[in-house]
Amino acid sequence: MALPPAGAIPLSGGYLHPDLQPTAALGAALARAARQPAAWERGPVEGRSDLRAWFAREAGGGLRADDMVICPGGQAALSSTLRALTTPGDTLLVESPTYLGALAAARACGLRVAPVPADADGVLPAQLAAAFARTGARLFYCQPLHHNPTGASLSPHRRTEVFSAVRDAGAFLIEDDYARDLSIDGDPPPPLAADDPDGHVIYLRSLTKSAAPGLRIAAIGARGPAGARLRAARLLDDFFVAGPLQQAALEFLTAPAWSRHLRALRRALDERRGALLTALRRHLPSLVPAVVPRGGLHLWAPLPAGADDVEVTTSAAAEGVVVFPGRPWFAAEPPGAYLRLTYAAAPAELMDEAVRRLARAIPR
Amino acid sequence: MALPPAGAIPLSGGYLHPDLQPTAALGAALARAARQPAAWERGPVEGRSDLRAWFAREAGGGLRADDMVICPGGQAALSSTLRALTTPGDTLLVESPTYLGALAAARACGLRVAPVPADADGVLPAQLAAAFARTGARLFYCQPLHHNPTGASLSPHRRTEVFSAVRDAGAFLIEDDYARDLSIDGDPPPPLAADDPDGHVIYLRSLTKSAAPGLRIAAIGARGPAGARLRAARLLDDFFVAGPLQQAALEFLTAPAWSRHLRALRRALDERRGALLTALRRHLPSLVPAVVPRGGLHLWAPLPAGADDVEVTTSAAAEGVVVFPGRPWFAAEPPGAYLRLTYAAAPAELMDEAVRRLARAIPR
Repeated sequence: MALPPAGAIPLSGGYLHPDLQPTAALGAALARAARQPAAWERGPVEGRSDLRAWFAREAGGGLRADDMVICPGGQAALSSTLRALTTPGDTLLVESPTYLGALAAARACGLRVAPVPADADGVLPAQLAAAFARTGARLFYCQPLHHNPTGASLSPHRRTEVFSAVRDAGAFLIEDDYARDLSIDGDPPPPLAADDPDGHVIYLRSLTKSAAPGLRIAAIGARGPAGARLRAARLLDDFFVAGPLQQAALEFLTAPAWSRHLRALRRALDERRGALLTALRRHLPSLVPAVVPRGGLHLWAPLPAGADDVEVTTSAAAEGVVVFPGRPWFAAEPPGAYLRLTYAAAPAELMDEAVRRLARAIPR
Repeated sequence: MALPPAGAIPLSGGYLHPDLQPTAALGAALARAARQPAAWERGPVEGRSDLRAWFAREAGGGLRADDMVICPGGQAALSSTLRALTTPGDTLLVESPTYLGALAAARACGLRVAPVPADADGVLPAQLAAAFARTGARLFYCQPLHHNPTGASLSPHRRTEVFSAVRDAGAFLIEDDYARDLSIDGDPPPPLAADDPDGHVIYLRSLTKSAAPGLRIAAIGARGPAGARLRAARLLDDFFVAGPLQQAALEFLTAPAWSRHLRALRRALDERRGALLTALRRHLPSLVPAVVPRGGLHLWAPLPAGADDVEVTTSAAAEGVVVFPGRPWFAAEPPGAYLRLTYAAAPAELMDEAVRRLARAIPR
């Protein structure tokens, strides 16, 4: 790199960098869909059956096309799920920390939120069982794969215990599988929904993180009475997702462009994660996470004792690098100060400069 | 017409018949938008500012682009509005009858619904004021233009009194202006939102009824603290509407294709309304509404004394014509039996046959 960039370098954001989005293939698919008059017609409220079938196949296990509902993006899927399955005053269990969009949606539904401790292997099953017992909660929101923000994945040996805790409580687990397409090191384990004989998992999968923010398509998978309540609620939330967008998504997902995109994405995420880690080891070694996430978009970086995450974020912006403070990802008092550093948001060749700037913002 | 059609003739549906949808112009606009990578980017949560400006200009009066939020369709706009401005147990006033999607959304929010009598000139202002006083309601859902299902429009001489009733109650009026583009006889009066100095109107406008079901774009206009609450709620409901769809809508609405579509639509609705009325006068004169709606998509047809609207609907389907029963449009016990007959849903040349079939389903 010759000269450092004049503008701020983004190490923040919930989506793929524009360079990583398959907008050419998406655009071609949507342009074809747009020109078919039938695509503009009223569609089924729950979404096209062929698109639901794609989501069901991807989920594996016991979910069928009829168990899926198409939604306009992951936030809509999550909000609809919480609204359909809770009443104000109910308690929602969440991993600590957790996705801040889930915290906001829970608060909007008038829910109490109870955090459950988690580590690099995901939520602690004994603590989960205890939290169910203590709070009477009947719902647990969970990101078992490449958790946002921490990057942790629920380890295989904990799956059975987590299922037991949920089943013993007569509860549901909302599996937010936002990172299904974002694994870097090896292929991901199947979703929890694939190992769920009794229908205790409500499965959420979105395409906005995998492809582009404008591909506002997600699916909720749910069986039995919970599934019926969800489908009824979706009808009232926004009726159905625009037909051309559903058709474009289906065409894109079932064409060779999709697997080409996933392969290119994995290489790019690997390169960017590596560049960010190299830069951190060089300039800010204390911020390197103890366990490097095997996928996803972010690193969850611990700040030195005494540093304030919001102050560091503000100083970093003044230095020309945009990061996200850790505090809003906690439902209760944070155990420490963190930054979320999004390697997916900036090109690899800017990482060294980005971390140099960040280093100037961290008190020593 | 040579042979009567073998399939059922639809006199039912919430949208324009496919023949009336401008899918060629919409398709061309969306195809162009799809091929611009920037359209796939994350957009502002409240929607594109140029599209919000279009909705604000159309609304007239005091609403500015910053007061508008773009939503994925009218049902989403209505659900978000009710969720943002009410808590469970609140009372919502509605015209009697009213849009059944509003009744369903209100029930989903846990609201009590109190019907207010309306006639061919719209809601009765004195009854509205009394209902506010009696129930303590702070919200009134209203379709002042070509009301669905009755087709009534609020007459100019009642506007001031309706405003007074709302203002005196310290309440908000949700103006569902779904039919702004569906006037047949002359141009419509400006929305109530255009005459609202104090920000008591929450304005809803959708493009799905005006253009095509797949153009899932609507806007909420709201000022002051109510507007701020709405914008915060939208963020949690579905984040933002797909960029290519917003861009296509803007291009379509600001091109000559839009006014061409509106002119052709007016002629087609006029022809279909006329054909349905002619057929009713010939075969079922008692079903002709006392006041013919000056726009919209439907006639609200009174059934003879003793007839049951749901039974007639079932018999009509067996005879090969699909109509909608009146009962679900009432929040309380209906004062009589009605059918909603959608002239927008079938070609003019099928109206005579449709009404012949309907006549066979009505007891005499």
